[in-house]
Amino acid sequence: MRMVDLIAAKRDGDTHSTKELEWLIDGVQRDQVPDYQLAAWLMAVLWRGMSEREATDLTRALIRSGQVLDMHSVAPFLVDKHSTGGVGDKTSLVVAPLVAAAGLPVVKMSGRGLGYTGGTLDKLESIPGFNVSLTVQELTLLVRKHGIAIIGQTAELAPADGKLYALRDVTATVPSLPLIASSIMSKKIASGADAIVLDVKVGRGAFMETVEQAKALAELMIRIGTGLGKQVTAVLADMNQPLGCAVGNALEVVEAVSTLQGHGPADFSEHCLVVASEMLMLGRLADTPDKARHILLDIISRGQALDKFAEWIAAQQGDARIAEQPGLLPRAPVIADLEAPVAGYVTGVDAREVGLVAGALGAGRERKGQHVDPAVGLVMHVKIGQLVRQGEPLVQIHARSQEAVREAKQRLADAITLGAESVQPPPTIYAVIRG
Amino acid sequence: MRMVDLIAAKRDGDTHSTKELEWLIDGVQRDQVPDYQLAAWLMAVLWRGMSEREATDLTRALIRSGQVLDMHSVAPFLVDKHSTGGVGDKTSLVVAPLVAAAGLPVVKMSGRGLGYTGGTLDKLESIPGFNVSLTVQELTLLVRKHGIAIIGQTAELAPADGKLYALRDVTATVPSLPLIASSIMSKKIASGADAIVLDVKVGRGAFMETVEQAKALAELMIRIGTGLGKQVTAVLADMNQPLGCAVGNALEVVEAVSTLQGHGPADFSEHCLVVASEMLMLGRLADTPDKARHILLDIISRGQALDKFAEWIAAQQGDARIAEQPGLLPRAPVIADLEAPVAGYVTGVDAREVGLVAGALGAGRERKGQHVDPAVGLVMHVKIGQLVRQGEPLVQIHARSQEAVREAKQRLADAITLGAESVQPPPTIYAVIRG
Repeated sequence: MRMVDLIAAKRDGDTHSTKELEWLIDGVQRDQVPDYQLAAWLMAVLWRGMSEREATDLTRALIRSGQVLDMHSVAPFLVDKHSTGGVGDKTSLVVAPLVAAAGLPVVKMSGRGLGYTGGTLDKLESIPGFNVSLTVQELTLLVRKHGIAIIGQTAELAPADGKLYALRDVTATVPSLPLIASSIMSKKIASGADAIVLDVKVGRGAFMETVEQAKALAELMIRIGTGLGKQVTAVLADMNQPLGCAVGNALEVVEAVSTLQGHGPADFSEHCLVVASEMLMLGRLADTPDKARHILLDIISRGQALDKFAEWIAAQQGDARIAEQPGLLPRAPVIADLEAPVAGYVTGVDAREVGLVAGALGAGRERKGQHVDPAVGLVMHVKIGQLVRQGEPLVQIHARSQEAVREAKQRLADAITLGAESVQPPPTIYAVIRG
Repeated sequence: MRMVDLIAAKRDGDTHSTKELEWLIDGVQRDQVPDYQLAAWLMAVLWRGMSEREATDLTRALIRSGQVLDMHSVAPFLVDKHSTGGVGDKTSLVVAPLVAAAGLPVVKMSGRGLGYTGGTLDKLESIPGFNVSLTVQELTLLVRKHGIAIIGQTAELAPADGKLYALRDVTATVPSLPLIASSIMSKKIASGADAIVLDVKVGRGAFMETVEQAKALAELMIRIGTGLGKQVTAVLADMNQPLGCAVGNALEVVEAVSTLQGHGPADFSEHCLVVASEMLMLGRLADTPDKARHILLDIISRGQALDKFAEWIAAQQGDARIAEQPGLLPRAPVIADLEAPVAGYVTGVDAREVGLVAGALGAGRERKGQHVDPAVGLVMHVKIGQLVRQGEPLVQIHARSQEAVREAKQRLADAITLGAESVQPPPTIYAVIRG
């Protein structure tokens, strides 16, 4: 087999065999395929696409390029969740302790964010002392004792995916459905998931801008998962405006805490309940969404969700007092409000731009390894469809300097549009697709 | 400017600005664009294409990446020719001395062949002593004295094209019209051509398999040339069956000699006359094709074409006696005929397969730097449309061993098809397009 022939075949719209994809990924893993050939192949895949069979074979090959985490000794059936990412998406911080409190063990490998705001790990690390670097032994102990742990991705799981992803990032070959789907599914399955809830975001602040695109991605991931013997459910959720109110690492932890107490923003609370319900159903702890929701609301109202959160934070060496005293979290020196210049209905809150502003404040990173500021960010006071008075605060800005506040205000004034006519707010959830 | 943004723009079907293409090629030349980004960009160009303006800008940038040879002190107006390559294509060996004998100076930079059979340089080097490595000073002297010289391509001319080409070869991004056109035109213009005759081959043994494809390539090259102030004429010529009879380095030199004597194969002689006529017209030595042809036939019949050939060979230190005694050229140890298994009409001679068989005998190379056998090859005795008797020789095989003859016979028996019904031979020339 020669790589140039595989590139030519994909360029001409042909389909790769299972053997060819195994050979290719094996070559990638052993550094035997030069980056320039891989880059040309990735662009050809982006152009010509892949059949479901090819995408499944690619996923399997990526999984086999490394180890598969096996936690079945302490968690007989593992349900994982994955979000395709968005602005203000702190879902894992709520859903993980929530379902763990309901008796469903959670072992999650999370990433650090690139662009926009931080990833789940960055948010957790804004909690003083929180440790995301655990050995497999430590992880096993935590899951056995507390039923929950979230750690960083290790290079041993689906390592060929890491190589592909690094190259896709610099060759403009990220937006390919089969490449996205195989990357996500290989990492989830390699980290030991028996079932997966996919939280696929749709809109301006998400990778998939239309419901159709998001649905196509969700369905492909469901078929790949099914093909590899996993149960998969996809939730299509809105990302035209930020999810919840807080955008920024420590600010999102604060919002997660209030959501676990039952006082979270309506859209974000609903989003967490839907994702957690689907996890309980996959884990056979409930047989209908209504029953699952009932269990979860009960856990929240009894304070068990917040208790599990505090227990988990402490178990990973974080300062669990933040569950009661959010003031212990890092706090930005300058806090200021952007006020509504006129009265009117909020007709748009551009999630993408809000994410970029939070990133510019220091909440995100542009390059791997860059430092993320835990304290800075935004707290949105308004949602699409809401009526605001002139002078009413639209956004609270948490920044390092007055200069940064000024810049953020300028950009946010354009990101939030006000109009004379009321508009319909976008739904929180577009659809739930069960595989 | 960032390379990843240029890749994304081309991926999305956008058009690059002049500045962007200059920046890109400058980066390639200075090794500042990593190969993996260039490879992804090349595949995106193959997918999305380029506008004429982009292809012209790319060509100009490639030319500017190195030196431009200026021979105007000894040749005020230089007409070059370029063939897109084919099987049995020894046109330059005939056309260069022919038009030089007519008073049109010829300065040609030629390449070595890859795949199939050798390139013009390989064919010339089958002449004992022939030297293709001349300094610019030596070249200038030769052109002043003899009006003709053919040398190897130097790395100083369009060096960025060399880098692009090397990468295209291993990333399956060769077959892109704008990339082919800009590569050819940049090399021709950098080697100092004021006007160019493009010999674009069409058919099974050529890169362009249909007249439509060849026409599209020819027209793009004409527009690029015109855009850069050069006069360009394209000849669309058949390559479904080999051009002439000889396929193989020294064997093609022998056929070139007999063609210069006026005894060449009909199709090849006609092909050379058309290309040479167009060169004379671009060089203003004739104002109609008929007048040009008359001049050329006169030169051939007076023996001046062969004389100029011998003068040229001697000037480049080759053994000029081969013009009278072809037996002085390298000769293969085993010569055998493939005979017609049945009587019938020749319905097909697969040029591609004939080229591959000649390559397998040793006449071509698969990798850069590989040795080419000057002696081996094939002499085709038949052309499409011809009636043959059973046992009549179809091909003469010149090989290193009996084993090689056996293998060649097997493949050639399939490459030459005989039928009961007469078929129309393909035309030698499909069209002449004058820019």
